[in-house]
Amino acid sequence: MKKILVVGLGLIGGSLAMALQGFEDFEVVGAVRSQATHDKALAKHAADRLTFDPAAELPGADVVVLCQDPAGITAFLRDNRDRFKPGSLIWDVCGVKTAVMAAAKCLPEGVDFIGCHPMAGKEVSGIANAEAGLFRNTHFIVTPGPNATQEHLDLLRRMADWCRFGDVIVTTPERHDQMIAYTSQLMHVIAVSVCADEGLFSCKGFEGGSFRDCTRVAALDPAMWTQLFTLNAPALCRVVEELEGRLRAYREAIQSGDRETLSAMLASASERKKRIDLERARGDDVRPSF
Amino acid sequence: MKKILVVGLGLIGGSLAMALQGFEDFEVVGAVRSQATHDKALAKHAADRLTFDPAAELPGADVVVLCQDPAGITAFLRDNRDRFKPGSLIWDVCGVKTAVMAAAKCLPEGVDFIGCHPMAGKEVSGIANAEAGLFRNTHFIVTPGPNATQEHLDLLRRMADWCRFGDVIVTTPERHDQMIAYTSQLMHVIAVSVCADEGLFSCKGFEGGSFRDCTRVAALDPAMWTQLFTLNAPALCRVVEELEGRLRAYREAIQSGDRETLSAMLASASERKKRIDLERARGDDVRPSF
Repeated sequence: MKKILVVGLGLIGGSLAMALQGFEDFEVVGAVRSQATHDKALAKHAADRLTFDPAAELPGADVVVLCQDPAGITAFLRDNRDRFKPGSLIWDVCGVKTAVMAAAKCLPEGVDFIGCHPMAGKEVSGIANAEAGLFRNTHFIVTPGPNATQEHLDLLRRMADWCRFGDVIVTTPERHDQMIAYTSQLMHVIAVSVCADEGLFSCKGFEGGSFRDCTRVAALDPAMWTQLFTLNAPALCRVVEELEGRLRAYREAIQSGDRETLSAMLASASERKKRIDLERARGDDVRPSF
Repeated sequence: MKKILVVGLGLIGGSLAMALQGFEDFEVVGAVRSQATHDKALAKHAADRLTFDPAAELPGADVVVLCQDPAGITAFLRDNRDRFKPGSLIWDVCGVKTAVMAAAKCLPEGVDFIGCHPMAGKEVSGIANAEAGLFRNTHFIVTPGPNATQEHLDLLRRMADWCRFGDVIVTTPERHDQMIAYTSQLMHVIAVSVCADEGLFSCKGFEGGSFRDCTRVAALDPAMWTQLFTLNAPALCRVVEELEGRLRAYREAIQSGDRETLSAMLASASERKKRIDLERARGDDVRPSF
């Protein structure tokens, strides 16, 4: 029997360990650090087996899935670089890819690191909220290094299918980080910026679906997102600044009383939104094969 | 049998006409302008009876619910001021309240206008998307004028309960407009600003739940929202400008590389979001009785 070692059973790692169970002839081993996580993971059978000692499992692990935060992944790669099994596949789930791919350069030849980013999540964290169905119909983004083997790319694709991801997107770490600055990190900056408004606690009774949706992700893990934002600072700052400019343009149009200009701006944005929703519904998403 | 006349069977009016059916001893009459809306409303039995001539119904209507856009409501009040039944209750569903309450000053004494705002909606519009369950667990905001009768406030409360609103919030038109600038209008300005990004169509495959949630309301009706934004320009421009400032503060913290400051900002916003979610879950929402 082969072995998948999932390191870190938080929301994503725990959900992956659950989703990966039963995949081909692999045993899924979950590595935890705290007794509390161990007990919760055991209670919900988050993995076939649990361990407090991932280093001891590495020499026998055919696949290693790193589910810590960026600093945790970097440290783990550095501290264990000589323990990975030759020919094994290592992948991670981190929301930034350039920094993680750079950190993986420390691995010896023959250990294949492929950067991954499951575009799934919840506004709550931890093994308690993990579930096997978390990845259903979400994007699985893959950033292979120059030496990624076809065998490992095929294996990764089969794992993604088994976990019920909606599609697999292959791209470069640099393009991933640029895209994600806009589609994910900016949404988190918006949510925390809205929640920093001093009127937050007096607005109860006046909030509707749009407010709940826009602020949903504000209840984020500060330590993790400090890392994610910092590691992608240039791309993220660019899209934040662009958004500031577009908000200012709307404010000026509203202030000016020029209804024609405002209406044209709203019509354009509304059309763009409808068009992209239509394209998505039609399934125009590229689903590249490896 | 008494009569409720719902004027304008779009998403909100159509849903209200559906939800109000069966309320006490009232007949629900829906007023439409186009044959297309008429036919769709008839097919889904959106009202007990349909009419193309609301003016003819007014003298016999005990309750009139105005579900047009702000300009439509203002024109309807002005054109029909002498047709309303003495002692009747008129309410509207408009997302701004100061301007509508001012327009209602044209009504003769003895016709009771109470401003209302059901905090419900969808990203799609029209009778085709109307449903009786739209208001379940949403806020029903009420801004009574100085001469609102207790009898009418009680009647409104019973209608809100019948439509399954989660609670009824009584406030002034001015406070409503201030609050709504932040909790609703700002969310729409954010959504259209995000969708105006030139990268929108190249980001497919990289969007997750936070992107879909934040941009959901961007597919708005430009004519309607031009009115809503313009009629609440000072309050809205203030909160947009404040958001620009907070986005800039995040950008500067990310750019500076000062992780401690960034982490503290994220921790504060995240705590605030968790706290308001907890308060909401505990049901701390004020539910004032009339």
